[in-house]
Amino acid sequence: MNVFEGYEQLKAQGKADLGSEAVLQIIKRIYERCSEYLQDKARRHLTSKVPNKEYFSFQKDGRFSRAINSRCFEHDHLKVESFWNAVGDGRLDSLQPSEITRFCYTTAISFCVVIDLERQRDQKTPGTFFEYFIGHLFARRIHVNPRKETEILNLEGGSSLPTDYVFDLGPGKAKYHVPVKTSTRERVIQVWAHQRVLDGVYGLGRFIGILVCLAETKLDKRRQEVVEICLPDQWRAYQSFIAQMKRVYYLDPPAKYLQLNATFPRIPVKPLGEFFFEIDHLPG
Amino acid sequence: MNVFEGYEQLKAQGKADLGSEAVLQIIKRIYERCSEYLQDKARRHLTSKVPNKEYFSFQKDGRFSRAINSRCFEHDHLKVESFWNAVGDGRLDSLQPSEITRFCYTTAISFCVVIDLERQRDQKTPGTFFEYFIGHLFARRIHVNPRKETEILNLEGGSSLPTDYVFDLGPGKAKYHVPVKTSTRERVIQVWAHQRVLDGVYGLGRFIGILVCLAETKLDKRRQEVVEICLPDQWRAYQSFIAQMKRVYYLDPPAKYLQLNATFPRIPVKPLGEFFFEIDHLPG
Repeated sequence: MNVFEGYEQLKAQGKADLGSEAVLQIIKRIYERCSEYLQDKARRHLTSKVPNKEYFSFQKDGRFSRAINSRCFEHDHLKVESFWNAVGDGRLDSLQPSEITRFCYTTAISFCVVIDLERQRDQKTPGTFFEYFIGHLFARRIHVNPRKETEILNLEGGSSLPTDYVFDLGPGKAKYHVPVKTSTRERVIQVWAHQRVLDGVYGLGRFIGILVCLAETKLDKRRQEVVEICLPDQWRAYQSFIAQMKRVYYLDPPAKYLQLNATFPRIPVKPLGEFFFEIDHLPG
Repeated sequence: MNVFEGYEQLKAQGKADLGSEAVLQIIKRIYERCSEYLQDKARRHLTSKVPNKEYFSFQKDGRFSRAINSRCFEHDHLKVESFWNAVGDGRLDSLQPSEITRFCYTTAISFCVVIDLERQRDQKTPGTFFEYFIGHLFARRIHVNPRKETEILNLEGGSSLPTDYVFDLGPGKAKYHVPVKTSTRERVIQVWAHQRVLDGVYGLGRFIGILVCLAETKLDKRRQEVVEICLPDQWRAYQSFIAQMKRVYYLDPPAKYLQLNATFPRIPVKPLGEFFFEIDHLPG
């Protein structure tokens, strides 16, 4: 199985049973193929315009991958593979949140980088992979598979609204609305708007909104410079006037969004690894 | 001046004074250049999958333009040019709404078609042109130039939110929130979400939301088939649960959206020409 075959298998198995052992094994094998592929690719240091972060890029035939945060990326593939074994054995509790974030970042960005180097202008494949990847981790942790649409009742009869992932633990239990994005930029208002529709249809507080993102980097390929594109004032307006997101998890959290933990309206932004330890307390 | 030079002039003059006579003259000249350009281009009939609509496409060197609605397009360029003279002379009242819609459709889509045939994958230029085009017509009719951002006050001090066009007639008078899109698809939720933010910041009913769109066609170039992509159930959910748009104007209105005039929640969807006759009564 090569990376692209693995991606097709991930989509097929993910649609059948996203939280399954089969999906875990596919993700693990995709990572192994990605790390083999990247072994002999040149790495180029990038100029970072982001305070306290350093980035590099993989190269092939003059083409550059997206920016990779040097401190988030685990170069030792054996460590990443043993992480996936731990996930399979249900031993996540034995790890630190920061380790989980690091190994998830490495797995996710390795796939994105392979697509950057092998495909032209393909944003869809990394985005879809990342959605299945996060969907699997959530389904495994919450013990329920997600839906991708939600019923909407009105007086003329029902219809259904396509949404991001919705994990529904059943009657009387928590329901999670989980949009997943490799980066947000100006499209992020959709996340709050969908949360608003769910609040309107089902009542405030019924769905717990959790946004999951990979990173907010942008690479200027000509200058080989990396910036982070963050719009914290807009996020604050959305959190004040559209709906309330309960958590935003990042694999490479931007400092400007981490600061939203401390201002009004509070938006709790955290590294993804925290999710696995606090999720049971989130409905409270 | 060629079409591309005209586009650059439109942006420069539009930023300086969008409702001005200078902008009107630039739009008129851009249309003249576009109609000259299209004179000798082959026209190919397309297979319409949309009931009661017929489409064609302009061709150049094997490349296809977007689909053009045959009944909305005015082939006689002299008629379109005399329309722009009437706009300049303030004689719009003497025209039928359907004529205004037709001449505006022809002007806007002619520019889009030239870009389709001359540029690769350029969606931005047609979108920007259409925004300036509609912005000019609104500014001329309402007698005020729009802003593209809105102040947001909070207890820690103010910040501003980038928005679509906002036309503000001043203290105690109507304020219009006018998003402009060549087509909407899945991005349209942003329109209702921005309206929601304005409702939250300034109070319900303070801003009158008016969405303006060109068309919702999609051309399958391989099959030469045209479909309309419409999501009326989603629009109804947004109108029920996010905010209320007061009008949606189309240059080529999809039947599925016109039906929203008759269902709950009511969304008034009309051909653009109606705007010029009813705008003074909209705040009521």
